[in-house]
Amino acid sequence: MRIVIALGGNALLPKGAKGTAEGQLVAAKSAISRLESLLKKDQVVLTHGNGPQVGNLLIQQQATSEVAPMPLDVLDAMTQGQIGYFIASAVSMTGLHSATLITRVVVDPEDAAFKNPSKPIGPFYAEPPIAQNPQPGTRYSMDAGRGYRLFVASPEPLKIREHDAISVLLDNGFVVIAVGGGGIPISAHGGGLEAVIDKDRATSLLASEINADLLVFVTSVDAAYLDFGKTSQKALRALSAKDAAGHVAAGHFAEGSMKPKVEAALRFLQGGGKRVVICAIEEIEAALSGQAGTTISP
Amino acid sequence: MRIVIALGGNALLPKGAKGTAEGQLVAAKSAISRLESLLKKDQVVLTHGNGPQVGNLLIQQQATSEVAPMPLDVLDAMTQGQIGYFIASAVSMTGLHSATLITRVVVDPEDAAFKNPSKPIGPFYAEPPIAQNPQPGTRYSMDAGRGYRLFVASPEPLKIREHDAISVLLDNGFVVIAVGGGGIPISAHGGGLEAVIDKDRATSLLASEINADLLVFVTSVDAAYLDFGKTSQKALRALSAKDAAGHVAAGHFAEGSMKPKVEAALRFLQGGGKRVVICAIEEIEAALSGQAGTTISP
Repeated sequence: MRIVIALGGNALLPKGAKGTAEGQLVAAKSAISRLESLLKKDQVVLTHGNGPQVGNLLIQQQATSEVAPMPLDVLDAMTQGQIGYFIASAVSMTGLHSATLITRVVVDPEDAAFKNPSKPIGPFYAEPPIAQNPQPGTRYSMDAGRGYRLFVASPEPLKIREHDAISVLLDNGFVVIAVGGGGIPISAHGGGLEAVIDKDRATSLLASEINADLLVFVTSVDAAYLDFGKTSQKALRALSAKDAAGHVAAGHFAEGSMKPKVEAALRFLQGGGKRVVICAIEEIEAALSGQAGTTISP
Repeated sequence: MRIVIALGGNALLPKGAKGTAEGQLVAAKSAISRLESLLKKDQVVLTHGNGPQVGNLLIQQQATSEVAPMPLDVLDAMTQGQIGYFIASAVSMTGLHSATLITRVVVDPEDAAFKNPSKPIGPFYAEPPIAQNPQPGTRYSMDAGRGYRLFVASPEPLKIREHDAISVLLDNGFVVIAVGGGGIPISAHGGGLEAVIDKDRATSLLASEINADLLVFVTSVDAAYLDFGKTSQKALRALSAKDAAGHVAAGHFAEGSMKPKVEAALRFLQGGGKRVVICAIEEIEAALSGQAGTTISP
């Protein structure tokens, strides 16, 4: 079976963790230990987020003018190297061979997202740092009342440039680590773009492109819920794509959290995908046999 | 033909260049344009240095205590992502498909190099920054009278962990970008080490491990010279391994420059390699036909 697993930020950098190399490596080893039996019997691609790590690089870049700052596409490439190395180190503990691929994702430079930068990244500021001119297509805005942040475009991923290399590596027995941070946004001509691609959407696109049998979103909650956070909350164990779409329309899933995962799940199923599982990493085995998490089917 | 090409620092970050993303990309495109016909007819792995880029990350890390600094193994992984992405972008201009692999290289944690850190990296300081405790196995020392620098261990590379993935990708038609900065130093158990592996040695090891037909060192000078820099200097066009070893012993090649390349060339030939070429990137085609550069044969 060919499986694509998106590791959420919490699985690789637990809340409250300092983001040291050691802390990230411990988290990666913990996550991979939960996946070991899957990795040993299936073809697996692991994707991952990079929000806190890019935020840290932005802070370091702003701390000195001695070094030329890198744009977002390059920062994504750097965090793919960083986090990919931690995951690869963890996979090595299982005795399996891995391949960490720097992954580019084609987007449309005319995507409407570039006119409405909606994805907040990096540190919070008490005042918008006017002195630092944001790049075209980015802006500083108040984020959730907690301070000003840089908002960047989150365009639609159209094609995973390295999907063919990923397939070849899977067919040859490697655990593949790819599409980190949603992938490096590039135009069809190959030029880098100042944007951040949603990790769940990019992971779903990859799963479609390499004909994965199963797409798994590892999250910090144990399942998708109706009325999440209310006393009436109810975990969804198994549901159809149609029902999932209805729950999205009814506003049951939080923006920037469960909603993008369910939407990405629906895209994969619409494109011919057969099964999506949303679960906590501790329960992934049970979730794959339908005993935990949320399973969405066509 | 299977070829491993080590791109020297100068080919990817010309002297005096600022190290901006744009500058690095322009340099990468210029380098790749010289290699296009080779890339199109042969199996090619491209390796590269990362000295200035790691130096920049060290400066940024030291500029703020707000973010946990990363150790050298992680910084190497990050620069593999950064520089690999620039090279991949350049390769895309040719229409070829590439794969940039985060590459780990096994070294011996008991390597004598850890007791005598000899590789200077990062910025120059007027005084050793005592406040910043260097990691075990590193120290601040005067470098060539220009200031204090961090000296780190440069252990012998023993095994390219990702050599199997590299071979698979080559066999499937990908231009492979790997072993950046000499590779991420790890122990046989997989733990990262505070060290920098010599890029030329690691490239030579890779060439042996994947049975390359040809190993090319792209340098800022056009060939290996006897009496380099003296009025008596004489370019070496073609020579045997035995003659090359004699010239090394006679002190003809500069430490940290031509000497490690010739030594790495000799290792590849001793391990069964058939041909090594040392040349400037502008002359690579002529050098491969023996009309320029230096060719060393068994």
